[in-house]
Amino acid sequence: MPTDPRPIGVFDSGIGGLSVLKHLARLLPQETFVYLGDTARVPYGNKSAETVRLYSSQCAAFLLTHNVKMIVVACNTASALALDTLRASLTIPVVGVIEPAAREAVSRTRNGHIGVIGTRATVASDSYARCIERYAEGKTLHVHSRPCPLFVPLVEEGWLDSPATRLIAEEYLRPLVANGIDTLVLGCTHYPLLGPVLSSILPGVELIDCGECAAIDAQHLITAEPQELLHMPLISLYVTDHTPAFTMLARQFLGMPVDEPVRVNVEHLALSSDIR
Amino acid sequence: MPTDPRPIGVFDSGIGGLSVLKHLARLLPQETFVYLGDTARVPYGNKSAETVRLYSSQCAAFLLTHNVKMIVVACNTASALALDTLRASLTIPVVGVIEPAAREAVSRTRNGHIGVIGTRATVASDSYARCIERYAEGKTLHVHSRPCPLFVPLVEEGWLDSPATRLIAEEYLRPLVANGIDTLVLGCTHYPLLGPVLSSILPGVELIDCGECAAIDAQHLITAEPQELLHMPLISLYVTDHTPAFTMLARQFLGMPVDEPVRVNVEHLALSSDIR
Repeated sequence: MPTDPRPIGVFDSGIGGLSVLKHLARLLPQETFVYLGDTARVPYGNKSAETVRLYSSQCAAFLLTHNVKMIVVACNTASALALDTLRASLTIPVVGVIEPAAREAVSRTRNGHIGVIGTRATVASDSYARCIERYAEGKTLHVHSRPCPLFVPLVEEGWLDSPATRLIAEEYLRPLVANGIDTLVLGCTHYPLLGPVLSSILPGVELIDCGECAAIDAQHLITAEPQELLHMPLISLYVTDHTPAFTMLARQFLGMPVDEPVRVNVEHLALSSDIR
Repeated sequence: MPTDPRPIGVFDSGIGGLSVLKHLARLLPQETFVYLGDTARVPYGNKSAETVRLYSSQCAAFLLTHNVKMIVVACNTASALALDTLRASLTIPVVGVIEPAAREAVSRTRNGHIGVIGTRATVASDSYARCIERYAEGKTLHVHSRPCPLFVPLVEEGWLDSPATRLIAEEYLRPLVANGIDTLVLGCTHYPLLGPVLSSILPGVELIDCGECAAIDAQHLITAEPQELLHMPLISLYVTDHTPAFTMLARQFLGMPVDEPVRVNVEHLALSSDIR
């Protein structure tokens, strides 16, 4: 049993964050998890910063009602735009997906050319570039960013390795190839499912899975000791809307079967310090 | 001047409905229009029927605050799932985009094989097929439907005629070609922008623009006389979230320059008969 039996809260705008939960459950199998997918308002990636901050606060407020001991923001857009707001409002640790992946990219690159792909909002926020700079410690680094808005719908369509997916990926990645990147941050929780296609277009380039990096950070905050798997991880799934493809996609992202999620309404919730 | 000077209200989950407003403004140039794009909660196409009905009621309630004389539901998902609810709650006419396009398809087909493409939610609702059947009047008709979830993101990415778009369209349309359709309903307000690609894949097939058909229906309800263009159509644009690409995309959908939209909050609104 973990020392502190309270659950770990995880939220995302939709299902993508389940690829982060997958790594959390693998690294911390003795913990229990409460996951909220804000499927009624997905995607966050094309919304304004103000709206993303409001929605993120409401998701965090919902997780607090489950007495969570930590919140993992398993969404790049929310990590880019709302992490500071959440940390300022909460006394429990809040782990985002950007800082851990940025740190990992800095430690892995050999030639200093790091690529970052994500949604329009994540790339426009410039969060990865700023974060990578912060961890550079004198290394000369060049960050080459590219929004890839078609990747999420391609993953949700299940076209993980179709000719169209390959064509689109080649088009998106062309400038990064030209820039000679040796490390690519997958700055969206959907993108690890495109790993095989991306690797084949970028042979020799290290792919950084932001969800895996965040899970490792969360593990360090919880315990220094590796946990043993005693039973299947205990996961409670909540969504703000029942969407037909959720259970099928959830299984794909999480890598294991899941129960039907419970639908909840979070629009009326707020963190105490929220200015509405 | 129109006889009844009140504006015509138009709403959509986002920007797609502007392709409907384009036809309304062309056919009814003496009218004034209030357009609401629910950009904070776009897209509706992957949400539950209950949620789409709630959001649609809130959009209609907002338009009522502008004293509109008619509401055009310029969104296929909302037309499929919420039109009956809206009509039951409102005393002004409510025009959707499905019935007019279904009627037009029935009158245009020669071989009785009609294709319908749209979002997952629109196709799953089976609204076009049921509506086409209703207008069949003894004609033997076969409706072949296909969800095309990647078309909206492709249009919003501006890839209207890229090789990837062509490849994806060929993949989506293959079963409809095999079924020998001679008429294709573009059951999503984004799809008219893909008209040239679709036509080149489907030579000789009639494409039905649901927005154009709805605008003709609205015109018949307003006036039997063609209106003359005395000035640029008066359009007030509202959105529930400021999104970076709105103005650029709006110009593309509407075919004319637009002012910056005004941001409004509709989450607190309800039609009087709504059960929340």
